[in-house]
Amino acid sequence: MAKSGDKVRVVCENENIEGALLPNEESDTVVIKLDSGYNRGIDKKHIKRIDFIEQAKPAQQSRFSVESIAAKELSEKKKFPVISVLHTGGTIASKVDYSSGAVSAAFGPEDMLNMVPEIGQIANVRSSLVMNIMSEDMRFSNYAVLAEAVKKEISAGAKGIIIGHGTDTLGYSAAALSFILGVLPVPVILVGSQRSSDRGSSDARMNLLSAARFIISTDFAGVAVCMHESSADEWCSILPGTRVRKLHTSRRDAFKAVNSSPIARVNVIDGSVKFLIEEYPKRSDTKSINPKTKMADKIALIKTFPNMHADIFEFLAKSNYNGIVIEGTGLGHMPMNAENLPIFNAVRKHISGGGVVAMTSQCINGRVHSSVYTNLRKLSEIGVVFCEDMLPETAFIKLAWLLGNHPADEAKKLLLKNLAGEISERSEYQEF
Amino acid sequence: MAKSGDKVRVVCENENIEGALLPNEESDTVVIKLDSGYNRGIDKKHIKRIDFIEQAKPAQQSRFSVESIAAKELSEKKKFPVISVLHTGGTIASKVDYSSGAVSAAFGPEDMLNMVPEIGQIANVRSSLVMNIMSEDMRFSNYAVLAEAVKKEISAGAKGIIIGHGTDTLGYSAAALSFILGVLPVPVILVGSQRSSDRGSSDARMNLLSAARFIISTDFAGVAVCMHESSADEWCSILPGTRVRKLHTSRRDAFKAVNSSPIARVNVIDGSVKFLIEEYPKRSDTKSINPKTKMADKIALIKTFPNMHADIFEFLAKSNYNGIVIEGTGLGHMPMNAENLPIFNAVRKHISGGGVVAMTSQCINGRVHSSVYTNLRKLSEIGVVFCEDMLPETAFIKLAWLLGNHPADEAKKLLLKNLAGEISERSEYQEF
Repeated sequence: MAKSGDKVRVVCENENIEGALLPNEESDTVVIKLDSGYNRGIDKKHIKRIDFIEQAKPAQQSRFSVESIAAKELSEKKKFPVISVLHTGGTIASKVDYSSGAVSAAFGPEDMLNMVPEIGQIANVRSSLVMNIMSEDMRFSNYAVLAEAVKKEISAGAKGIIIGHGTDTLGYSAAALSFILGVLPVPVILVGSQRSSDRGSSDARMNLLSAARFIISTDFAGVAVCMHESSADEWCSILPGTRVRKLHTSRRDAFKAVNSSPIARVNVIDGSVKFLIEEYPKRSDTKSINPKTKMADKIALIKTFPNMHADIFEFLAKSNYNGIVIEGTGLGHMPMNAENLPIFNAVRKHISGGGVVAMTSQCINGRVHSSVYTNLRKLSEIGVVFCEDMLPETAFIKLAWLLGNHPADEAKKLLLKNLAGEISERSEYQEF
Repeated sequence: MAKSGDKVRVVCENENIEGALLPNEESDTVVIKLDSGYNRGIDKKHIKRIDFIEQAKPAQQSRFSVESIAAKELSEKKKFPVISVLHTGGTIASKVDYSSGAVSAAFGPEDMLNMVPEIGQIANVRSSLVMNIMSEDMRFSNYAVLAEAVKKEISAGAKGIIIGHGTDTLGYSAAALSFILGVLPVPVILVGSQRSSDRGSSDARMNLLSAARFIISTDFAGVAVCMHESSADEWCSILPGTRVRKLHTSRRDAFKAVNSSPIARVNVIDGSVKFLIEEYPKRSDTKSINPKTKMADKIALIKTFPNMHADIFEFLAKSNYNGIVIEGTGLGHMPMNAENLPIFNAVRKHISGGGVVAMTSQCINGRVHSSVYTNLRKLSEIGVVFCEDMLPETAFIKLAWLLGNHPADEAKKLLLKNLAGEISERSEYQEF
């Protein structure tokens, strides 16, 4: 009988599934690690038989201690700049141990260099595990920990930081770090992967290498994301930290810049970098940064939908959600007339009680506008802040950060001020 | 001094804005109708002066009574099929009266034929105003009214229905009608416009004409959307009713099919139709349909975000939201471990108390999956229904409709059954 880790063929009624057998607590399911790097659970009642193909390969031993937070230095070649790699968990930090089936965060400097030996030819790599969570579980407190780790690495002389991060909330974290870290002397590049790092089809290696090449070969400073540009292994995109969104559940080129151009593209074959924008923040020699890590705890991101009821907004006001970012429809509408009047009234009451309510659009692309239609003007009049062309997710993070550091009236003003590339000037009124 | 309707140039500190002066109740703002058809409010404190350019043109008198629900027949040419145009309000039904500044829904059969005379050369048009609201205010009760109007027109022999609709929630309405109307003998095509119909740059005319041509020249039956394919006036897209989303706040080509191909494209120049899919529902000779208009009233569409609190889910359970569609991250994750455990527990409790909780992805594109990661399997085990590649908005509408017509356990099963093109079979597991 096949053991955990063995390559098998699961013969089902309508299909055959090949991959490595994983141990599984659920007795009614067989879990297979596919060649793509993803797991698939198969209900036993659909399985006709399991054919053995090949024995398990012995698991690679990780020489990295998960508990070790302090960065370990490899034999540093003096002329090379130092790149610090901070790991937070997620698919990019995961490697399946076929003997136990556990996905373990197993990235130390040696693992990194083993996976991407080219980085060792251009930089001294320091690597540390800052936390170990899947990114859907990220909370604001994690952003603070991450920001302090970045600060420490910059103080210690790192010429650039790479943050390995789960893809699910990578865009939110990139926005959070953009606001928290403020003006940066070096690049801080978030990197994820859509396939776990131990598989041939993983995008981890190329995303990491492209981030390192971008750090080494350019004068860019600031927060950005480096991910596959297309599903081909040809280019990676460098995407602005406050303008990036995961736009596909599974493709390797899921991350796109929204309402903005990518910053640059990195050629995976020859390592060349092509900037796609002319102006960007540049490196400086300072080693000190001043992260503002406070964020207001109870902030909500609420999407509007047909037949919505006012009780959701009434609840948020009662439950001390001092800030609400509405993901409205179109140019920034929400239900508000006739039967929907109680929704309008609940929002108005919340604002007059001191709450901050900001408007974005579930269209994702484009700009909200406070004056095209009468309804929009009414919302603007009661104090709803129309967030221009900011992503809803970025507006949510920004509002939480602003209310953590400023009184409400100042936060409202700063929402509309471009602090980290999150808003662009309206250039053409005619677009509406 | 310039009067309402006059063409003026507003000279501001940094720019000049030209357009028609609109009357405005707000004393601190001047509102201008731009040539693009949109209004812009300008704070008086930024205005240096207003130059008069040209006198107002007299407003066109509408010969259509807003109260008239019954369809009026024009001189019907016997050999032509009948197309019924149902208006609901929104930008497509709006025309600015420059003497009063009011945006009025002013589309009767004559207005239609005046705007798109080509339709009169291929069909007998019947036109009626079913309701008159901006689409952000649509509620489930409006869907019922609309479905009954469609039924009436089909009974009266219409060979196709065009529904004029505001763009903001057009996708939601298209999904609702897809489920409510069930199997249809004729096409029901929703059409919106991103620019108001009285302007040269309006997309209303081409979207309406393309919908009519598609109805007349093909054997398609069912619910679809007809909107600009690109910002050029060259093609319109026929998009599947349960797979369509507004993906830009202002562009005319804002509507796209998601996780699906468009059904067809209509050439704006020569009226030819090119199908992009092979299988689609076909016309039949029946004149009777059986709309199921009931929808459960308290259903929520909730997006997850970092630092979310459990109280939102606890509130929804307490407040009789029998169905919740979660717009999670990535493959269908939500915050659920460590500090986020109370969120998981709240969802579990809601389900064990009889609530239906469905999972979709805020990535928009791609498919959720209940078994790739341990966290996903845990959600599946407590009864969260993973909605395959359904749009969050479509899953929300579908769940409301299912719970309006079926007990919860049956609704859960039907959520995963493809009823109106909203789900496609998983073809490649390797995509994950």
